[in-house]
Amino acid sequence: MIEPFRLEGDRLLLLDQTLLPEREEWIDIPDAPAMEKAINRLAVRGAPAIGIAAALTLAVQAAREMDTRMGMARLGMYAQRLISTRPTAVNLAWAVRRVVEAAWKAQKENSEIAADRWAAVIRAEALAIWEEDRAASRAMAANGAALFPKGERFLTHCNTGGLATGGGGTALAVLFELHRRREDGITVWATETRPLLQGARLTAWELQKGGVPFWLIADSAATHTILRRRIRGVLVGADRIARNGDTANKIGTLGLALAAREAGIPFVVVAPTSTIDPSTPEGDGIEVEDRPAEEVTGVRGMPIAPPGIRAENPAFDVTPADWITAIVTERGVHQGAPYDLGRPVDTKPGP
Amino acid sequence: MIEPFRLEGDRLLLLDQTLLPEREEWIDIPDAPAMEKAINRLAVRGAPAIGIAAALTLAVQAAREMDTRMGMARLGMYAQRLISTRPTAVNLAWAVRRVVEAAWKAQKENSEIAADRWAAVIRAEALAIWEEDRAASRAMAANGAALFPKGERFLTHCNTGGLATGGGGTALAVLFELHRRREDGITVWATETRPLLQGARLTAWELQKGGVPFWLIADSAATHTILRRRIRGVLVGADRIARNGDTANKIGTLGLALAAREAGIPFVVVAPTSTIDPSTPEGDGIEVEDRPAEEVTGVRGMPIAPPGIRAENPAFDVTPADWITAIVTERGVHQGAPYDLGRPVDTKPGP
Repeated sequence: MIEPFRLEGDRLLLLDQTLLPEREEWIDIPDAPAMEKAINRLAVRGAPAIGIAAALTLAVQAAREMDTRMGMARLGMYAQRLISTRPTAVNLAWAVRRVVEAAWKAQKENSEIAADRWAAVIRAEALAIWEEDRAASRAMAANGAALFPKGERFLTHCNTGGLATGGGGTALAVLFELHRRREDGITVWATETRPLLQGARLTAWELQKGGVPFWLIADSAATHTILRRRIRGVLVGADRIARNGDTANKIGTLGLALAAREAGIPFVVVAPTSTIDPSTPEGDGIEVEDRPAEEVTGVRGMPIAPPGIRAENPAFDVTPADWITAIVTERGVHQGAPYDLGRPVDTKPGP
Repeated sequence: MIEPFRLEGDRLLLLDQTLLPEREEWIDIPDAPAMEKAINRLAVRGAPAIGIAAALTLAVQAAREMDTRMGMARLGMYAQRLISTRPTAVNLAWAVRRVVEAAWKAQKENSEIAADRWAAVIRAEALAIWEEDRAASRAMAANGAALFPKGERFLTHCNTGGLATGGGGTALAVLFELHRRREDGITVWATETRPLLQGARLTAWELQKGGVPFWLIADSAATHTILRRRIRGVLVGADRIARNGDTANKIGTLGLALAAREAGIPFVVVAPTSTIDPSTPEGDGIEVEDRPAEEVTGVRGMPIAPPGIRAENPAFDVTPADWITAIVTERGVHQGAPYDLGRPVDTKPGP
């Protein structure tokens, strides 16, 4: 299984995903500002993964503190800054808040708690989030695969594999599970996912490593593929799911959902419960991050358009719940709109 | 006006569109094999433009012949090879056949015709095709603009401007005309059009030169833009239109048509009559060109995916006539399915 970070003692290492697939380079994250930069430039991405990465960063940061009061103040500040790096991904805010609450609680219960014991509590909470995410990936893989007793041809968007989570992934974990279950395996059509090419660079890399047959396609070929190439289902991840099921995910998802509806095939969102935001009643309330124009006017730093032009670069779009056939979490499957995902997020989700 | 080729005496010069927008480099086309290569590597592209380019090439080729009988045989062979470079674009076959027929007719009427007089007939026919295309662009611009008495926000795909035709263009010519007619001008959203980025490289270049405000977007952002950004109409070109109105155009067109239908806004195809193929009753009969995987696994020669993977690269998709609000030609506007475009193609189209 591919995991995008490693914790060696108090040393946090991050696989720099901007360099994939050409180079597998691990970078040191000594403190919270280093992780802020890494998240901003998408060295780590994927809603579950950035949540865990931020939690682990707070653990590493806490281990450097000598004084718990000062440390707690600093933790709060860093937590706020980490949350604001990616406004759409709700798992990030969820994981950071969970760590901060554990830190508060430890200090509240024992105002004289030693800095190293306080840091240990934070570390334990961050590791628990990570471990739960691994278990969630396994459960989502099983829950999602059960939706498709038949069919060998699936399409996916962006990267939702091990690189995007702390475990085996979300939508891509379901596809790996389907490949394992089918006697003759499955074939995946993976969209390249401009502007940042997470499909071409990361999903292709994971599918190749995992030995799943696949075809890479340009995003522009997705509707043609869904309508004309007998695709059995479209599976995607999510960055934030509103209470009614409206789902913010990587730009391009909306078009895939529309094509799947037209083709009459299932369009399935796979995401851990931490992606559900019960405080957002519907998609209109989801803030969508605009990213720099340079990501569109260039490809991995190489300009592809005339200098001086303008580009719009919304990082996400919001797919209406009506177009979503099922929402798969680690707890089970919500099947068909209208959805009511209004239960508060359990901080200890499990299969 | 931007035109993608120049004829200086018997010298044919071609603007190498693969080098745009960085460099405006004109290459010499001394004979038909040179044009075959240029069309194959998309140095010239756009259905009307490759038709005219092939016609001009046959004129240049004919000017080199000393003997009309030998010349006629060679012309037939080169014509066949030129037609087979791009199987989907029907204008190519149409223009080449028209030139060959003129050559045959000249020889049939006077079996002793001198080589230079025979070549002059061919040249005149090629220039007539070019001149008619210029007039067709002007007429399409006016016919298309009349469809939109209101609205300032339009979306287009691929490149359908001066670079894609012998004149001012098809869909893009309509947008330029709308910009001219509106007091405050219009704003265009231009898709980058992977894999070969004709939108980012060529449409952006033409719009910038023409002073039309525009936003470049990733193809993956098109559905979001159409559904959420109050776009007033989507305008595209065509590579082949079947008798019933089903339209083959650059891959990605199908998704735009679906999104426009969902948004309830006009989806308009703009193409000269020579793009209509009355011998193909419906879209199923249109051969769709598959292009090399390397165009998807790389961007302008730079790899973007792991080595050794497979990619599908259909160059076109076929949009059903039902999803097309209007088909604009130089002769007028066909409005709404069912279409019957079964009239034979007039070899002398005009406004």
